[in-house]
Amino acid sequence: MSSVHTKPKRDIPLKDHLHEIIFEAETIEGRTFDIVLLIAIVLSIATVFIESLPNLSPQAKHWLLVIEWIFTVFFTLEYVLRLYTVHKPLKYATSFYGVIDLLSILPTYLSLLFGGAQSLLVIRALRLMRLFRIFKMVPYLAQGNMIAASIKRSIPKILFFMAFVMIAVSIVGAIMYIVEGGYEGTGFDSIPRSTYWAIVTVTTVGYGDIAPQTALGQFLSVILMLTGYAIIAVPTGIVSADLAQTAAHPEEDYTTEACRYCSLQGHDADAIRCKYCGEYLHLEDEPKKDSSENEE
Amino acid sequence: MSSVHTKPKRDIPLKDHLHEIIFEAETIEGRTFDIVLLIAIVLSIATVFIESLPNLSPQAKHWLLVIEWIFTVFFTLEYVLRLYTVHKPLKYATSFYGVIDLLSILPTYLSLLFGGAQSLLVIRALRLMRLFRIFKMVPYLAQGNMIAASIKRSIPKILFFMAFVMIAVSIVGAIMYIVEGGYEGTGFDSIPRSTYWAIVTVTTVGYGDIAPQTALGQFLSVILMLTGYAIIAVPTGIVSADLAQTAAHPEEDYTTEACRYCSLQGHDADAIRCKYCGEYLHLEDEPKKDSSENEE
Amino acid sequence: MSSVHTKPKRDIPLKDHLHEIIFEAETIEGRTFDIVLLIAIVLSIATVFIESLPNLSPQAKHWLLVIEWIFTVFFTLEYVLRLYTVHKPLKYATSFYGVIDLLSILPTYLSLLFGGAQSLLVIRALRLMRLFRIFKMVPYLAQGNMIAASIKRSIPKILFFMAFVMIAVSIVGAIMYIVEGGYEGTGFDSIPRSTYWAIVTVTTVGYGDIAPQTALGQFLSVILMLTGYAIIAVPTGIVSADLAQTAAHPEEDYTTEACRYCSLQGHDADAIRCKYCGEYLHLEDEPKKDSSENEE
Amino acid sequence: MSSVHTKPKRDIPLKDHLHEIIFEAETIEGRTFDIVLLIAIVLSIATVFIESLPNLSPQAKHWLLVIEWIFTVFFTLEYVLRLYTVHKPLKYATSFYGVIDLLSILPTYLSLLFGGAQSLLVIRALRLMRLFRIFKMVPYLAQGNMIAASIKRSIPKILFFMAFVMIAVSIVGAIMYIVEGGYEGTGFDSIPRSTYWAIVTVTTVGYGDIAPQTALGQFLSVILMLTGYAIIAVPTGIVSADLAQTAAHPEEDYTTEACRYCSLQGHDADAIRCKYCGEYLHLEDEPKKDSSENEE
Repeated sequence: MSSVHTKPKRDIPLKDHLHEIIFEAETIEGRTFDIVLLIAIVLSIATVFIESLPNLSPQAKHWLLVIEWIFTVFFTLEYVLRLYTVHKPLKYATSFYGVIDLLSILPTYLSLLFGGAQSLLVIRALRLMRLFRIFKMVPYLAQGNMIAASIKRSIPKILFFMAFVMIAVSIVGAIMYIVEGGYEGTGFDSIPRSTYWAIVTVTTVGYGDIAPQTALGQFLSVILMLTGYAIIAVPTGIVSADLAQTAAHPEEDYTTEACRYCSLQGHDADAIRCKYCGEYLHLEDEPKKDSSENEE
Repeated sequence: MSSVHTKPKRDIPLKDHLHEIIFEAETIEGRTFDIVLLIAIVLSIATVFIESLPNLSPQAKHWLLVIEWIFTVFFTLEYVLRLYTVHKPLKYATSFYGVIDLLSILPTYLSLLFGGAQSLLVIRALRLMRLFRIFKMVPYLAQGNMIAASIKRSIPKILFFMAFVMIAVSIVGAIMYIVEGGYEGTGFDSIPRSTYWAIVTVTTVGYGDIAPQTALGQFLSVILMLTGYAIIAVPTGIVSADLAQTAAHPEEDYTTEACRYCSLQGHDADAIRCKYCGEYLHLEDEPKKDSSENEE
Repeated sequence: MSSVHTKPKRDIPLKDHLHEIIFEAETIEGRTFDIVLLIAIVLSIATVFIESLPNLSPQAKHWLLVIEWIFTVFFTLEYVLRLYTVHKPLKYATSFYGVIDLLSILPTYLSLLFGGAQSLLVIRALRLMRLFRIFKMVPYLAQGNMIAASIKRSIPKILFFMAFVMIAVSIVGAIMYIVEGGYEGTGFDSIPRSTYWAIVTVTTVGYGDIAPQTALGQFLSVILMLTGYAIIAVPTGIVSADLAQTAAHPEEDYTTEACRYCSLQGHDADAIRCKYCGEYLHLEDEPKKDSSENEE
Repeated sequence: MSSVHTKPKRDIPLKDHLHEIIFEAETIEGRTFDIVLLIAIVLSIATVFIESLPNLSPQAKHWLLVIEWIFTVFFTLEYVLRLYTVHKPLKYATSFYGVIDLLSILPTYLSLLFGGAQSLLVIRALRLMRLFRIFKMVPYLAQGNMIAASIKRSIPKILFFMAFVMIAVSIVGAIMYIVEGGYEGTGFDSIPRSTYWAIVTVTTVGYGDIAPQTALGQFLSVILMLTGYAIIAVPTGIVSADLAQTAAHPEEDYTTEACRYCSLQGHDADAIRCKYCGEYLHLEDEPKKDSSENEE
């Protein structure tokens, strides 16, 4: 998928021209197509949202259904064109965006078989992500990449931390079930429900649909809250530390060069000489000796 | 708008004198005017707050209306004087504070046409921001500027992040609508409402006006909460990292100079000599040798 | 208040001996006294807590009152002894802990005049802070001091930030009052109440005692929540950045020395020579020349 | 407990062989055993969760009880085998995992005496922590260790901070009890309950089971919320700062050396040569030239 076309090429075959319009945003037609697509996606999601409202008049329901089918036909046509114009249709069809594009049209057809399936059309929202890329919101994307890199680095740590939280809330849930469970209508009527309450509490969401009634239950929940208050700090701290590190050493992910002599890595971005063998890291820093030396 | 008058000038024309009183806080009259203005703004906001209370006696309502009109006339007079004394009235009228000053008096006049419009008088609160500047709370402002700069740097990253959150909560909302929607009185009676619930949950606000009733709904909301718990870390991490960077390198945006001799960077903003080669960083610090040396 | 007595002095006058027992924790008697005091404070707070419970039997109430008076008489005696043994009674009586000590006994006497005043005895909890100091929890105090220093540094920034939040929530409150106010029983029946709701929402507390009912109100509250979600990052970021800075440069608050020659500040804690003029920062580092030179 | 066996040793005695299977995960049998154990633990916890559900049919209850006993017998057998194969049975029995292993089987036996005790079987979840170790999730563990080290460093600071929070919420609770307590059905019917509310509020959980009704109570709770909003930053800041420090300088406590030639600092802990001048940082790394060279 080549992406840097500086000038529109008018003499290319129709298939390639369509490919450029549909997949790229370099030409006027391509950009127009993407804007139309953006508007269509947002409007079609709005249609799904409005369709789900209760107390709609039959006429409104009828027209919303008509609009939904128009959007679906448009997106189906677009999907077929993408399959037709792309060089490797199978690769596209099995790619992330290919699957999303298919899932964005399927629910309407499925709704012929099963009522209510059209709510799944909201999956079209994921198609908006492609537009971030298409419209080349570069400074935003650079930021996004940095955040994404930091988040990716944080994920194993956070999952590990979450595993401990899950173990802890199961045990707290079981204890609260014993403490509160004997009372009618408290909501602590099963361990899964008590664990649900423990998670609602420890994440500081606190719906209040279930709340402890007994003094002991309130005392235990206070301990859980204060613990939650303290441990909410941990994922934040992990991401903050990773982001601070990424911000402080932005080149870290990009320049991970190895020494040309000893092959060891881990040099600072401002290093001139290899910190292990003392040789110059970059050919251009090296005092010219003879041209027989060649690097990688 | 000159702002450093060390002594009151009594022989200046009335218009300039008024300008100094109204716009500056250097003279005793100017400072007195600003304090009166501060008190008037706070009292007028208090009036609007009290006016909105239910179960007020007709007398109380009457007197509050009188007080409101007194404040409005005072602010109108002040606005006219600002327009009269300022050198470029149009520039002032279209500036941020000019618009706020106008919006702060309009609702009372509009309430003659539309009842209830006076609640909008609360916009007067924005006028307090000018007083921060006027009273020259310099150490606070320096801090505020640093925070504002960090927040400004964080905004694109946070908006980008928010876009993903919005896409995610729409999809979660649609799924919860399908899972919970069949049950009467659960609150999940439309996708917009389910999305509202998803945002209430993921931001850990958790009103509890809508809460999942089914086991599957509670299971999904638990996943949403734990995700929210983890992703609440991201905006915090972004701002923390930016603030830490701003705090560690407060002049970073201003000076990123390289030594004129060894070209190495990373010098403190207040450094006089290069910390690598010892040469003067700036020509003007260098003891004069001869005028043939020229840089950049 | 001398505080380092390495061995108990048995031949000192009674007044000084009592002072050592009551104010210090170096001798066995002093340490015992402090432990008794700690237990007495905790028990007396527990008494106040239990006393406030509804549905107590008259006997229980009677005995709790007796216990409360016993503690009050004990703390009164202690207060009188502190006044007697301290070298400057007036200075003690007007100091932070002196005022707390007095306020810790007054409510019981006041309860003879006004019923319910004894709830204020909870102020005794503040006396526990002295025990942190007395028991010389040094590593904890060092940490506490570092945190306290960071928090102190953060306060102006956070207050400044809070001022903006207050202005914003007033305006949001007024808008929500207009949007939701027309509907009966929504809770948005006055601007103060709407502002209370806005603060409950933006801080992510989310009681749910007031929740928007209209679609527009829910839409506005969603924007408020997402904003709150983003701005919750700011105070956290401020404190994180300050703590990170304090942690990275722990000596910063202590050594803020100026050069003895050029008077410029900003030297690192490990600097030997002034980074502006090159002279030695400390006399002891300087090569001996003659004794006529004098500093500071 | 030796842990690096690269090949299964078939000629070892049965007891040692069993030890390897049960305690280690190096051999195929050991790994299989651990996977079976993992599945058994997860399934047994699921059984306890399902058993606690209300409205179960008698048959379901019967079968769940049978399954519970099967798991308990299996875990009892495992516990006895652990005791038999381990070299120091007493040390194992009193170790953290030994106690957990015992507590994981006791509740079923206790349920013969006391109904409902089987809810405590959830403690089996703690056994999952051993599997983290067994399966040598090394990169995750390295991260986990770093986080654990940071959290451990943060604990005294957070406990100290929590002590202040506890003192503050007690006092706020007492004040709210006085302010709101006179009104029927507000929930502020005792100081412990008011303190519970204060903690629910300051941690931003906000159930809404208790919410202030009076204007003064709402005003005070707004101050509490804004304070909570600001102080939620403190534990987060503490952990962030500690994590950032750990991440930025993992070996910080060990090496902060300067080059012996150019005296410049900032070298990584694993550096062999100076990254500025290329000379050896440590005498012992230097190729022997002659013994007349001496450093510092």
